[in-house]
Amino acid sequence: MIDFRVTKTDGRARRGVLRTPRGEIQTPVFMPVGTHATVKAVCPEELTELGAGIILSNTYHLYLRPGEDVIKGQGGLHRFMNWPGAILTDSGGFQVFSLARFRKIRDDGVEFRSHLDGSLHVLTPERAIRIQESLGSDIMMTFDECTPYPADEDYALKSLSLTTEWARRCKAARTTDQALFGIVQGGMYSHLRRRSLDELLEIGFDGYAIGGVSVGEPKALMQEVTAVTTPLLPEDRSRYLMGVGDPLDILFAVEQGIDMFDCVMPTRNARNGTLFTSRGRVSVKRSEHTYSTEPLDPECACPACRNYTRAYLRHLFLAREILAMRLNSLHNLAFYLNFMQQLRDAIDEGRFSRFAKHWRETLGPEAD
Amino acid sequence: MIDFRVTKTDGRARRGVLRTPRGEIQTPVFMPVGTHATVKAVCPEELTELGAGIILSNTYHLYLRPGEDVIKGQGGLHRFMNWPGAILTDSGGFQVFSLARFRKIRDDGVEFRSHLDGSLHVLTPERAIRIQESLGSDIMMTFDECTPYPADEDYALKSLSLTTEWARRCKAARTTDQALFGIVQGGMYSHLRRRSLDELLEIGFDGYAIGGVSVGEPKALMQEVTAVTTPLLPEDRSRYLMGVGDPLDILFAVEQGIDMFDCVMPTRNARNGTLFTSRGRVSVKRSEHTYSTEPLDPECACPACRNYTRAYLRHLFLAREILAMRLNSLHNLAFYLNFMQQLRDAIDEGRFSRFAKHWRETLGPEAD
Repeated sequence: MIDFRVTKTDGRARRGVLRTPRGEIQTPVFMPVGTHATVKAVCPEELTELGAGIILSNTYHLYLRPGEDVIKGQGGLHRFMNWPGAILTDSGGFQVFSLARFRKIRDDGVEFRSHLDGSLHVLTPERAIRIQESLGSDIMMTFDECTPYPADEDYALKSLSLTTEWARRCKAARTTDQALFGIVQGGMYSHLRRRSLDELLEIGFDGYAIGGVSVGEPKALMQEVTAVTTPLLPEDRSRYLMGVGDPLDILFAVEQGIDMFDCVMPTRNARNGTLFTSRGRVSVKRSEHTYSTEPLDPECACPACRNYTRAYLRHLFLAREILAMRLNSLHNLAFYLNFMQQLRDAIDEGRFSRFAKHWRETLGPEAD
Repeated sequence: MIDFRVTKTDGRARRGVLRTPRGEIQTPVFMPVGTHATVKAVCPEELTELGAGIILSNTYHLYLRPGEDVIKGQGGLHRFMNWPGAILTDSGGFQVFSLARFRKIRDDGVEFRSHLDGSLHVLTPERAIRIQESLGSDIMMTFDECTPYPADEDYALKSLSLTTEWARRCKAARTTDQALFGIVQGGMYSHLRRRSLDELLEIGFDGYAIGGVSVGEPKALMQEVTAVTTPLLPEDRSRYLMGVGDPLDILFAVEQGIDMFDCVMPTRNARNGTLFTSRGRVSVKRSEHTYSTEPLDPECACPACRNYTRAYLRHLFLAREILAMRLNSLHNLAFYLNFMQQLRDAIDEGRFSRFAKHWRETLGPEAD
């Protein structure tokens, strides 16, 4: 099981410690995403060196390939991927919503077609828990219906009620001591978010997540939902904003009291050649780097910055070399994890607002 | 400059030491190929850990992208790619022959169009040396006309004469103390191979390579050319069979007295999922590995074999994950480098023929 306590606050920003069976996680924390039982382009030893203590992996993807029976037979996901740290698995709800070729929501669950081969599948709350138990993650998520954007109030209400019902069934289906987090839905309606949370609180979970954001809504709406919902979440449980995000989104959400984040941004941007640095974003392919003998970020201690020049990183990227993906991914993850470390220090030292101001100036759109 | 001496022989197989400005290389040696200033999917630290002391890089590719002026401005290829070991650069002759979209052989050199963007270029012996001097490799190769297969005797003779003339100009153009190897051509004609070599010997080089093999000829012809030419090469210079090859080809060539090899096979096969093991070749995607909790090769100490199961490697490969390319490449390079280490030990201990027999049984077509 897990245990969470807040160790310090600065405004609504919280410093905390999440104890898991696989180590203590300092929060606010960013979880690198390892969709197919690997954080793309990096290996577990590198993640550990970068300071990652928890990653996210995807139930939907692992259920389809290689199948949870395979991973169970390997002794679980940690052993399968050789990752000694903690793992949070999502429930598949978001991917059924965003990836599956076809989906039909039924009372008992969702029928959908695989995005890989079109094969027909059914995920139910019970099945989602069973899969996550086979994976053996440290934190499981309830199976939700991820309310799309836009959704009218009627739809959002029906959707959150279904999510509540499924959350109840998820909790009842659990047979292990893996932690289980509930997911607050309710679309972009504040009163529905509150209602969703109240219903989840009545059931009781080990942590609470805000779902149904990063689904195509304007950033202002994501911020509104986060700002309205976060203060309502119980203080003694960790709070997780799913699928977020950009370092500036993380700053905003930490300001509201969020503790946990996941996002493909650092690794996906890396593969596209967009790199985060202490001086702002850098597009590595730009011709201005052709002859550069400078490191990508002189303030970064990652292997890409320690051992190579911008000219080399540009060359690798343009030549589509795998090492470009490796070094860029390492760098962006180093940036994110270092950013979170600095953010935690700032809360500890009561200077979070100054920290946030600095990064808003550095990474704001005008610095892009 | 370099220095080579034979330390032991076993039949015609030779053990030797090649002293370079960047360390001593034990021969027979396999040089991993780093076409674009990176051995695909692995980083220099990993190469060093695997025991690689020398790699090959490609003048043609680096000339086109990023350009030798870029690499010269970075302090040379070693610093550019952060590789502390030795580097041999080919001259571009083979790539102009095999990759360029169009080529026109002139007395002064070759006019060709880039395979990247169709732009028009001219490589001459002088230019090929100038580029290799900009790269700063430890061993340069003369610019040759790689005789195609099949080629009639007339063509092969004219071609080798041009190669001789170009080799003379390469030597005259050299302005540094980088080593320079001559390349024996002559097509599949034994007397022309002898003639090519005699002409090169008259000019005098730091080492001698057999070129114009691995150009589509039947394996028996490659073996014949190797068997006929190798014993003629001077005993006190290192002997390099270009672009070879399969471990069985290496065995054959070492038996004839070859000291140096390069080939994309370990890394390319890795990316295609064909892995070399102590028990034979393994196709990692095969369904028989789906549930396997075995390592790929229990006798291998590489990270892929130490940390992961066949089931995981299969999963990564089918999911087209970058980590699959990394682990498979590491493994196949570990296999090759370990194979060469064992081969050297076998020569040192006077049991090369037993060693060769063992591997012919293990890797022969029937074991595939």
